[in-house]
Formats: sequence, C-alpha cells, structure tokens
Amino acid sequence: MFYIIGLGLGDAKDITVKGLEIVRKAERVYLEAYTSILTVGKEILEQYYGRSLIIADRDLVEQGADAILQDADTKDVALLVVGDPFGATTHTDLALRAKEAGITCKIIHNASIMNAIGCCGLQLYNFGETVSIPYWTDSWQPDSFYDKIIGNRKRGLHTLCLLDIRVKEPTLESLMKKKKEYQPPRFMSVCEAVEQLLEIINRKEAEAGDQGQMASSLCVGVARVGAEDQRIVACSLQEMKEVELGPPLHSLVIAGCLHPLEVEFLTQFARSKDALLEIAQTL
Amino acid sequence: MFYIIGLGLGDAKDITVKGLEIVRKAERVYLEAYTSILTVGKEILEQYYGRSLIIADRDLVEQGADAILQDADTKDVALLVVGDPFGATTHTDLALRAKEAGITCKIIHNASIMNAIGCCGLQLYNFGETVSIPYWTDSWQPDSFYDKIIGNRKRGLHTLCLLDIRVKEPTLESLMKKKKEYQPPRFMSVCEAVEQLLEIINRKEAEAGDQGQMASSLCVGVARVGAEDQRIVACSLQEMKEVELGPPLHSLVIAGCLHPLEVEFLTQFARSKDALLEIAQTL
Repeated sequence: MFYIIGLGLGDAKDITVKGLEIVRKAERVYLEAYTSILTVGKEILEQYYGRSLIIADRDLVEQGADAILQDADTKDVALLVVGDPFGATTHTDLALRAKEAGITCKIIHNASIMNAIGCCGLQLYNFGETVSIPYWTDSWQPDSFYDKIIGNRKRGLHTLCLLDIRVKEPTLESLMKKKKEYQPPRFMSVCEAVEQLLEIINRKEAEAGDQGQMASSLCVGVARVGAEDQRIVACSLQEMKEVELGPPLHSLVIAGCLHPLEVEFLTQFARSKDALLEIAQTL
Repeated sequence: MFYIIGLGLGDAKDITVKGLEIVRKAERVYLEAYTSILTVGKEILEQYYGRSLIIADRDLVEQGADAILQDADTKDVALLVVGDPFGATTHTDLALRAKEAGITCKIIHNASIMNAIGCCGLQLYNFGETVSIPYWTDSWQPDSFYDKIIGNRKRGLHTLCLLDIRVKEPTLESLMKKKKEYQPPRFMSVCEAVEQLLEIINRKEAEAGDQGQMASSLCVGVARVGAEDQRIVACSLQEMKEVELGPPLHSLVIAGCLHPLEVEFLTQFARSKDALLEIAQTL
C-alpha cells in the first residue's frame, strides 16, 4: 500500500493518530521537503516518530517516482507532505503513478493553509480563487495574479495568496554544468509579496489613470499558521510593507467585502483598530 | 484555556495527536453535533478517547456559550468539531465570545471538505467561491447559488457545493408551542442536490431560450470523504440524478475548465470513461 499522509501545518504532533500509526509501521517513509515546510525539521520528526525518514527532494519526487513506489504493492510505503496531500499537483501526479503501477494509494488528510486560513476570521465561503505570488526575476515579472485578485474583489470575495517557496532550485549557471548546484532556500515573506503587489498596483493604476485606492485596501498577513508562535496582522496593503512577521511560512489575504462578524474578529489582529474600522467601512 | 479542536472527516483516529492529548486531559469536552457529522458516533469517540463527551447541540452552541465557557479561564475546556474549527460561522463566534470573556482560545486545525475535496483530483487553486445548497421548502426555494456556479464556470473555475444538513430543526408546528419538537435529522444527498439544481437550470435556460447545455456539464459527487468507504463518482449532472452514494455526508463539485492531469485523475471515478472524456473535450 502507498500512503500519502498530510502532516498539517505546525509541528510533529499535528499528524493525525491514523497517520502516526502508519508512519510507525511502514517499511519506508519519505518526507517531501520542497513544496512546503513545518516549523520543525527532519530530526525532530524522526525523534518523535521513533524511526528514520528519507528526504524526498524535488528531483526524487518529480523524477524518482519508481524508486518511491518500489515494492509498495507488497509493503507499506508512506510519503509525508506538509499540509494536506492534495495541496500540490506533484502529489496528485504521484497518486496517479501508483494507480498505474497497480498499487493501492490511500490518502490521510490534514489541515492545509487552504482551510486553516479561516483562523484570521475571514469566512472560507467568502473566498474566491486562490492565487500564487511568485518571486520576480530581472527578466520574469508575471502579474496575472493581480487580475484574479481584482476579479475576486469585484465580486466581494477575499483572495488567499500563496507565497513562493524556492527549495533546491538549481542556479542558472549550474544548469549548463554536469553537476547541479543549488540556490539557498527562499520563502517569500508577506513584506516581499506586498512590495511586488504594490509595484503592479502602481503601474496598473497609473495606466488606467486611477486614484490609487487599492494600496489602502485591507489585507491580512499570516505566518506559521497552526504553530505556537503563529502571527496574524491586519492593516492596509501600504502599511503591510513595514510588517515583519518572522520565520516562514507566510501567506497573505486581500480582503473583499466584510461581514460584521469578520470585522469584529479581525480587530484583534489589527495593527491599528481605528484604521481597520475605517477601512472596513469603505469595503 | 478554551480549545476548539478539529476532528477531521473520517473516524475517531482522524484527530491529531495534539488534539487527542488535549481531549484526554481536559476538564470538560463538548462534541458539536449539528453542523456536520463523522462516520462514527459519540459512543465510539468516547470509547476511543477513554472519557465522556457532552453533546453540544444547536441550542447549546448558539445560546449556551456561557455554559460552555464556564471556568475555561482556570480549567481546560474543549469543543470538538467535525472538519476544521473555522468551517462554520458559529465556531468563529464562540472563539470571539471566549476572547471577550478574557479566556485564551487555541485552535487545533484539521482537514475539512474545503481542502480534502482535492481527493477527486480537481486542483484546489482552480476552485472559485464555495456555495451552499439548502433544502427547498414549499414556500422557500432560493437559487442564488446557481448564479455563483455560473460565475465560477465563466472564469473556468470549479465550484464546491456544500449540501444542507438539518439536525435538531424544530418542527414548524412546535415553534408555536412551549415545548420544542424536532424534525428527524436530514442530510442532503448528491441526488437531491442535483435534482434541485436541474430544476433551476431548466427554468433559467427556458427563460433565456437556451439549448440546455448545463445539464450535460461535468460534476463530481463525493461521499464520506476520508472514511474507509469513501465514494467518488464523475459524470454529467443529468446522469448524477441516478447516482446513489450511500450514507452522509455528501458534497458536489461542478467542474469548470479541466487541466489534462485533472481529466486523467477523474477518469478513475468516471461512471463511463468514454462519456467523461467526451464531456472534458467540450470544457
């Protein structure tokens, strides 16, 4: 049997009881370590589970499916992923590969940022399409996520923005060489995301001859959701540029229309309560 | 401390290790039993946790917040909810009441249908706004969810439809009496939801002089996601009227544009693989 087990979002104890039992009895257990991270590393997980884990990096997950699935028809093999198993396309793909090889694949669900973002008080059924904000490079500065945010806002909906994660990215120079060299891991902060977003907003609003209303709109920055040191801050986009939320992972929500209960809940995370109430009135 | 603990979607072992530790040591533990259900009941949970639970029905959660929160400033009190704590507005409200009473509130996240629906192979970032489909009565037949589904589809997005749950609903007659009497619990099936949806579609398309394309569009019915006997079926809306998925809970997805990987994954759940591939080509 091949298991894909969600680890949730915080630390070692956010695994489900069902997941933990499988981890403890499986023949091999892989830890997927490039689409997301927990607040604890491999060693702490190994200590807690009382067994060794095999790191499944990008190369292994995307090109080594056969190695991961080896003997899974007769033995129990598990892949641990941060959040929920179907948060990333690559895990869906692995489940399909298993099926094609005649191996039964079982999913152990857990929290992901897609539902845990409800912790900021914005109701999940008021969210539109989720967007991803990628790191810009000198030559690649996509801005299609902006149109999706605007589209959601027009319908009064909030937008969850997933922020870029770069783990085990080969350096541009090493792509030409035989031996790959990797960039240091990077996790986009709320600050960085807001900075890119404001750059797009300024450009688009200048093009349209707009008054620059978007920069004063309400957003919510969250960091390490589900962990002991989780942080949530609500303020305008312009202000969020100055907000430092600490270690990864970060996510950002651009608010749409607010229900009174949402406003009430958000005020506990407001950078300035008065400013938040003022913005909320304009939404 | 007041804990709101997500139980996930399947059975007793879908609680997280962190959640279980709190349940075992808390002074009082309430089980919220009207916004959703697990595939196992109170007795099995009590047996597994090795402790007694207090049922928190609608009246208690919505009007008895003080009773639930009593002594939570000095003792540990937990409320167990199916799925993730912030899936329902009523839990957000309870978290606020705790804060107002000066009680620290801690959330233990878990999977909810909002992210676990990824198990059908449709990617979460391709979903638009989630809708709720309520049971119609003779005098109340709302159809605003239809416009949201159409709005999502126009943007190529899938729609997750949450289906109505009626637990401990007072009978109309008893509302006049002193002693409330309750209707038997009802959980909307995928069949029932599709039937209502097709009624709206027929009416709206007749009004617009349309060719009736919507009835042949692709949908996915899911039942008991995360449980051992989980079921997933993909077919046209018209066909889904005949699909019996067994005991609750059920949910429905109306597909938008499909990525090739989504089509490939969905085929394993297709009522007819050829029919599914044909529909997918038109999307």
